[in-house]
Amino acid sequence: MTWTVDVDAVRAGERIALARTISQVEDQTTAGRQALSALFPFSGQAHLIGITGSPGTGKSTLTAQLAHAFRHPPTGDTPRRVGILAIDPTSPFSGGAVLGDRVRMRDLAGDAGIFIRSMASRGALGGLSAATAAVATVLDAAGYDVILIETVGAGQDDVEIVRLAHTTIVVEAPDLGDEVQAIKAGILEIADILVLNKADLAGVARAERALRSALELADAGRPFNEVAGHHREQKITSNASPIGWRPPLIKTIATTGQGTAELYQAIMDHRQYLSDENRWESKNAARLAAELEHHLRESLFASWQRGIDPQEYKQVLSDVLTHKIHPQQAALDLIKQPKSSK
Amino acid sequence: MTWTVDVDAVRAGERIALARTISQVEDQTTAGRQALSALFPFSGQAHLIGITGSPGTGKSTLTAQLAHAFRHPPTGDTPRRVGILAIDPTSPFSGGAVLGDRVRMRDLAGDAGIFIRSMASRGALGGLSAATAAVATVLDAAGYDVILIETVGAGQDDVEIVRLAHTTIVVEAPDLGDEVQAIKAGILEIADILVLNKADLAGVARAERALRSALELADAGRPFNEVAGHHREQKITSNASPIGWRPPLIKTIATTGQGTAELYQAIMDHRQYLSDENRWESKNAARLAAELEHHLRESLFASWQRGIDPQEYKQVLSDVLTHKIHPQQAALDLIKQPKSSK
Repeated sequence: MTWTVDVDAVRAGERIALARTISQVEDQTTAGRQALSALFPFSGQAHLIGITGSPGTGKSTLTAQLAHAFRHPPTGDTPRRVGILAIDPTSPFSGGAVLGDRVRMRDLAGDAGIFIRSMASRGALGGLSAATAAVATVLDAAGYDVILIETVGAGQDDVEIVRLAHTTIVVEAPDLGDEVQAIKAGILEIADILVLNKADLAGVARAERALRSALELADAGRPFNEVAGHHREQKITSNASPIGWRPPLIKTIATTGQGTAELYQAIMDHRQYLSDENRWESKNAARLAAELEHHLRESLFASWQRGIDPQEYKQVLSDVLTHKIHPQQAALDLIKQPKSSK
Repeated sequence: MTWTVDVDAVRAGERIALARTISQVEDQTTAGRQALSALFPFSGQAHLIGITGSPGTGKSTLTAQLAHAFRHPPTGDTPRRVGILAIDPTSPFSGGAVLGDRVRMRDLAGDAGIFIRSMASRGALGGLSAATAAVATVLDAAGYDVILIETVGAGQDDVEIVRLAHTTIVVEAPDLGDEVQAIKAGILEIADILVLNKADLAGVARAERALRSALELADAGRPFNEVAGHHREQKITSNASPIGWRPPLIKTIATTGQGTAELYQAIMDHRQYLSDENRWESKNAARLAAELEHHLRESLFASWQRGIDPQEYKQVLSDVLTHKIHPQQAALDLIKQPKSSK
């Protein structure tokens, strides 16, 4: 393939060039790596917003409403260009479901200020958050001011992806069953804004009560998540804001748009909060440091693979498969040995 | 801490020694690594069974029923010793929920042939499947014949954990909403056995139809998953069994035990299937090779970290944070440079 990087076209907002570049970046081709390196210096402006929640909470519709709100701000703000990254395979943005009645999706599709991309969530072994970060960087450099990243809210990979975001929105809905409620304490700890969607359903009052008490619990145990990445265990200390950010609970009905303006405002409030005391910069720094570590791990392994004697590796693997040496010990043995003793 | 490895006590089935060893292994202490190395040669007999599904499908109750079935086989088979590893934070096995009416859990707790362990699912950055594998190895070496691994069925980490298992059971339930249905095509591809639990609920006929057609779709696109790990893209080829395994759909009502005998039989059938044509050995080999790779990556990074000049690293990180060099390029630069040029 002779496709070459057209960084200028991407930066000029040419959609076909952008789509192709993203594909190259996702596929980790040489052209993709070059594009990423060339585009990186132009990135760093976008507001990354993670939207996470279980399937069935209506978060795709809410994402569409939010995209619309950023295009047509209820407060009279400047319209923003919006990128949507759908990681959730059940998202209508991913094309995984046929949801013809979601008119809002069609509205978005015709808007030149919106770029929608779905990402394969399975198979990208441990690399999904890195791939998402890379694609977000491309959209950022292409001038998308706001990047909405929609993930299904369960599992470690979601937590990883969420750590990319400046603002994390956790979407819940009433009546998803008691066992679903139990998961909330965990996911609430990552919420900057909590949304109770489908607020027209029965059980909303009960769900709201449950969420408010869960929020209080989560708040008590909230890690110092202004610095994402490696410092999540750390509690808020005295050099943090004395009050800090208390995640608001916002009720929405995404199918009608009710509550979207309040949610938009909460996002803007959070953005304002982040802009104080270098929080925005801290988040970016933690994210980039984590990206660097990820790529170091990948590169070290790739480099090691190129240097190893295949016979030697085969012998050690054989000792592992016959249960003579545990994989962890075998790994230590393999990297300690001189790689070319012959 | 002066705790030392008591491999003999673990192998003799002493529960306190076992629990302590698992904690050391989970915490990656020196004693834990030594225990793992010492126990590894005695492992390799256990049947690892993954049980995955969304919260609300009743998979914990089903897991309890299965544990009971292995202790008291409906077919008159030899009773097996059962280890239960709960990865799902919402599982009652994890103590995350107070579900006093689940009498079955209390039944299990008093049985010396059952060992229950929950694992923290958040925070073990990328290491949860490795930790699960290690703990499963300990239980295996301690003589547990069957290890039931319960995970919440969404996200990459679940897929990783499921790859540990010889037999993967995907649990569904009626009426979890249409969007939940949409996720099934993905998760069904990893199912060796599909369970439709809560078969007494309304909507079971509709759910069954949906699952059967999803199963057909998944079967058509099913990867050659007898060899887990790196070959998932590969389709079934001519050197595989001409028919292969077709995942059965089994309806259960876990709260009453209905369907448990059929599920037990399906597991035994799958075990029989795996015992043919070296499938069991292939699965074990793929799992151990993946474990070796994981530990290689970890060890390489740890070793690199010990060797790097902190000043040099600081400079490169600074170039990343100021958007001069993309993390991927920075990683390549860092590992190419001689580590001690002074």
